Amino acid sequence: MTYEFDLDTRVEPDGEDAYLADITDRWHTPNGTPNGGYTLAVCLQALRHRLPLPDPIAVSAHYLRPAGVGKARITTETVKTGRRLATGMASLWQDGKEMLRVVASFGDLDKARGRTLVLGRAPRLPDPETLSDALGGLSMPGLSLAGRVEYRLAEPPGWMRGEPGGKPQWEFWMRFRDGREPDALSLPFFVDAMAPAVLDIGEASLTVELTVHVRRRPVPGWLACRVSTRYVMDGFHEEDMEIWDSAGNLVAQSRQLGLLLSA
Amino acid sequence: MTYEFDLDTRVEPDGEDAYLADITDRWHTPNGTPNGGYTLAVCLQALRHRLPLPDPIAVSAHYLRPAGVGKARITTETVKTGRRLATGMASLWQDGKEMLRVVASFGDLDKARGRTLVLGRAPRLPDPETLSDALGGLSMPGLSLAGRVEYRLAEPPGWMRGEPGGKPQWEFWMRFRDGREPDALSLPFFVDAMAPAVLDIGEASLTVELTVHVRRRPVPGWLACRVSTRYVMDGFHEEDMEIWDSAGNLVAQSRQLGLLLSA
Repeated sequence: MTYEFDLDTRVEPDGEDAYLADITDRWHTPNGTPNGGYTLAVCLQALRHRLPLPDPIAVSAHYLRPAGVGKARITTETVKTGRRLATGMASLWQDGKEMLRVVASFGDLDKARGRTLVLGRAPRLPDPETLSDALGGLSMPGLSLAGRVEYRLAEPPGWMRGEPGGKPQWEFWMRFRDGREPDALSLPFFVDAMAPAVLDIGEASLTVELTVHVRRRPVPGWLACRVSTRYVMDGFHEEDMEIWDSAGNLVAQSRQLGLLLSA
Repeated sequence: MTYEFDLDTRVEPDGEDAYLADITDRWHTPNGTPNGGYTLAVCLQALRHRLPLPDPIAVSAHYLRPAGVGKARITTETVKTGRRLATGMASLWQDGKEMLRVVASFGDLDKARGRTLVLGRAPRLPDPETLSDALGGLSMPGLSLAGRVEYRLAEPPGWMRGEPGGKPQWEFWMRFRDGREPDALSLPFFVDAMAPAVLDIGEASLTVELTVHVRRRPVPGWLACRVSTRYVMDGFHEEDMEIWDSAGNLVAQSRQLGLLLSA
């Protein structure tokens, strides 16, 4: 069986340093456009073909234009290949326009052997099996992403009940609906797969830039997540995300800079 | 009068899309190499020449090799020019090797007119004029950066007294020693100008990737800062920095991924 994520992020070589991909309509946000984490994952698949190390450790993505459904060409460049880190660049093109520019440093997280010290805490969430599917039976126009990812929340934020509560931070569980287990390559997708935190202050937003640091390969199972926005300044805001695996370890941290649609 | 920062980050055009710069020995960290925020600022000076908008709003820097003192060539590319944001790429080269790759989206922060909502708090620090210069009279070998930047702390972390306290987070004031006022372009330098937070857990570190979001142009005066590391995983750690201006507004947020030298 090929899982949806692997099928829809697949790339085919096109010449020496480019790849072709199909951007499908199965990962749409309510904006009616492909989710930014999904198009980022396509670029990372191309870089994984290109670079000699497996795990995207530090990923920077600048969103230039909203991508659309259909063919995409990903051009890549090997920036530097070192023993511990290999850095590459990828650009996603559609109809002759660059939609997304990514610089990513890959490594091998299983060979990382340094010190560990955790001063923050994992999300405090009940067993996901005791919670109901946050979108069970709920259909949102255009939001095909919700058919791919399942969310479980103990305390749904106000906006989910139609009443933004002014608290743009919450914790939740997340996983692929089709049973695909999380891995290092899917984490840069997952950090962008939740609805934006600013929904709880009554705002929608577009991503300008997204940085992901993958900190460890996740073990199989649910991902425990925490999303938050603390500072909206003149229409720009950060959104921070942490993802912890089912063994209780931090596996990814991300921050994006967004621009409110109302700005 | 030309201030040190402007003098030492100056670039001269070299052909259509490249610039020449002199990396000086006045911004060294105790590693004996130029500070990463300084080399980043040189790249941003080149991009400011190249792009039509003035403020570096979202900056991603991947550190490939430690830069050295001497001539550098900065190659640049205009990635996209839009009404609100202009994105460019810059690479800093020395002796035929790429040291630093930067992608940055510039905008005009004075034209940002959207909503503001602050849910975090500014650092709680006494008036800087009541505090003494943290490095007054102290000389650290190789640390020429301390001749350029002045730091004032109410509660110095343990490592400053030679006893790492295991608390890699503190608040402090910062400014240029020569009286140059902070601006949007110097903030990506300032976010990297403090000693790494991991010093307080007895570690030193090298930057792999640094992301800076400049949120507002600072007013003149001292910068109130907060630095913290919460998660060290297998030798990799994040370092978060916030900078607030003397009017009490958040002006920059940054996160870097570092790798402990002990790893």
